[in-house]
Amino acid sequence: MIFPKEVEIIEVGPRDGLQNEPGTISTENKKELITSLVNSGIKRIETAAFVHPKWVPQMADSEEIAQFCNELGLEYIALTPNLRALERAILSKVPQIAVFIGASSAFNKKNINKETSESLIECEPMFKLAKENGMFIRAYVSMAFTCPYEGAVSFDEVKFVCDRFVQLGADEIDIGDTNGGANPKLVYERFSRLKDLYPDIPFVGHFHDSNHLALANVVAALQAGVTKFDSSIGGLGGCPYSPGATGNVATERLVNMLSQMDCETGINYEKLLKIAPFAKSLSTKV
Amino acid sequence: MIFPKEVEIIEVGPRDGLQNEPGTISTENKKELITSLVNSGIKRIETAAFVHPKWVPQMADSEEIAQFCNELGLEYIALTPNLRALERAILSKVPQIAVFIGASSAFNKKNINKETSESLIECEPMFKLAKENGMFIRAYVSMAFTCPYEGAVSFDEVKFVCDRFVQLGADEIDIGDTNGGANPKLVYERFSRLKDLYPDIPFVGHFHDSNHLALANVVAALQAGVTKFDSSIGGLGGCPYSPGATGNVATERLVNMLSQMDCETGINYEKLLKIAPFAKSLSTKV
Repeated sequence: MIFPKEVEIIEVGPRDGLQNEPGTISTENKKELITSLVNSGIKRIETAAFVHPKWVPQMADSEEIAQFCNELGLEYIALTPNLRALERAILSKVPQIAVFIGASSAFNKKNINKETSESLIECEPMFKLAKENGMFIRAYVSMAFTCPYEGAVSFDEVKFVCDRFVQLGADEIDIGDTNGGANPKLVYERFSRLKDLYPDIPFVGHFHDSNHLALANVVAALQAGVTKFDSSIGGLGGCPYSPGATGNVATERLVNMLSQMDCETGINYEKLLKIAPFAKSLSTKV
Repeated sequence: MIFPKEVEIIEVGPRDGLQNEPGTISTENKKELITSLVNSGIKRIETAAFVHPKWVPQMADSEEIAQFCNELGLEYIALTPNLRALERAILSKVPQIAVFIGASSAFNKKNINKETSESLIECEPMFKLAKENGMFIRAYVSMAFTCPYEGAVSFDEVKFVCDRFVQLGADEIDIGDTNGGANPKLVYERFSRLKDLYPDIPFVGHFHDSNHLALANVVAALQAGVTKFDSSIGGLGGCPYSPGATGNVATERLVNMLSQMDCETGINYEKLLKIAPFAKSLSTKV
């Protein structure tokens, strides 16, 4: 089995974790959460989403959060679902953006009423503009294993999106088990094939823990050579469009496992244990 | 990665899961639990423990449970910690017995005030008598990865016990992560070495979920060629001598993972989901 010496953990709690909370989370609380995560040794965090405040009110303070992260000198990521969002991110001097495409055709039709290919066409000017502005592009393939509407998602559906992301110049591709339906065998097979097809692209594993398989899936992805993983402090999160999906794998559980396996993350587990209760106190879901 | 076509699951909930419950669990409830587990497709169950009722009152009805299992024609296992227990098991026509030795010297000293070697000497007449009576012998090495008193347990400590179990004629050896301190890397290394040393001995993986790593540990053990695992319906259990240890890996979670990976267990997952709430209703701990 493969247990790499170093693993990069990207914290997604402040964005993926908190975006769907029904209550109001103050900007001060978000800043406190981000600061404590940075102090625990986490180097990259998804902190903001430039989405319309009417749809995702929790992210309405993204400009202020971006400014805060810029002052911290943090390598942070902001979600930019469209050109308007990207323009806001550019104005806010965001260093890294994240774009999303669902691999499942049924999911895309149901949720955004678009074919996967249409969404990909809309991505093109965004990639171009982001590149012109020197931004790092994280490209998410969501619903990359199973989908609440079509069940199994085929490898070809995932490949179709990855092909285009690679052509457009994605700096890393994040393969999302958005509804927690993956299993270690599927994870190993899918990542192995992707790594064979695109040996130079850094892939990220993004696992939700709906079926309690997130850590087992990380172990399987490690065997396929993946060394970057998303996680969420306290296991915050879910998926608004995926009934029953629970949060991302908890950062503290992931760091504990990796540390026990001598995979260095540079993150202090004891500090995470102190942050997790605060993170959970901001959430109605964990 | 290795994903075997068939995996054997041994249900330990009725014994390991319920033995430490403070309240009274009726014999009728135990019979109902065992019957429903058999109906779900489970072929082997630890159902009884011939221990003194003063110390483990939940197992006081072991004779009646053994008779019930005999009538069912079930391949069941009863725990027999000493010769007196074994004699009771023989009288009850138990087909399979389980004996325990802790790998951790510190644990043995603390809990039974004996050296590991002394405990092993006491096992000898039990193995002899069980063999004379045609019984199948499951030999448990508990605390085989970490121990609440000494921390890391060395491979040599585990090998010391396994060597003797093999010499005495154990039919299978169960390697227990009794306090849930193992991790996938350690599990893979330890089982790989054991399988190299004793290629003809069937090894069983027994993982507690204290650190949420039980399923990941199962995946690692599969890679080392292990195809037998203990689990407990509803995640019942714990360890009376191991502070903080939670229950065994839940049978329903294990069956779900294996079934998704096309590892056949012969067990009906939907039926397990219906049994789990009843099992949990008998427990104060899950």
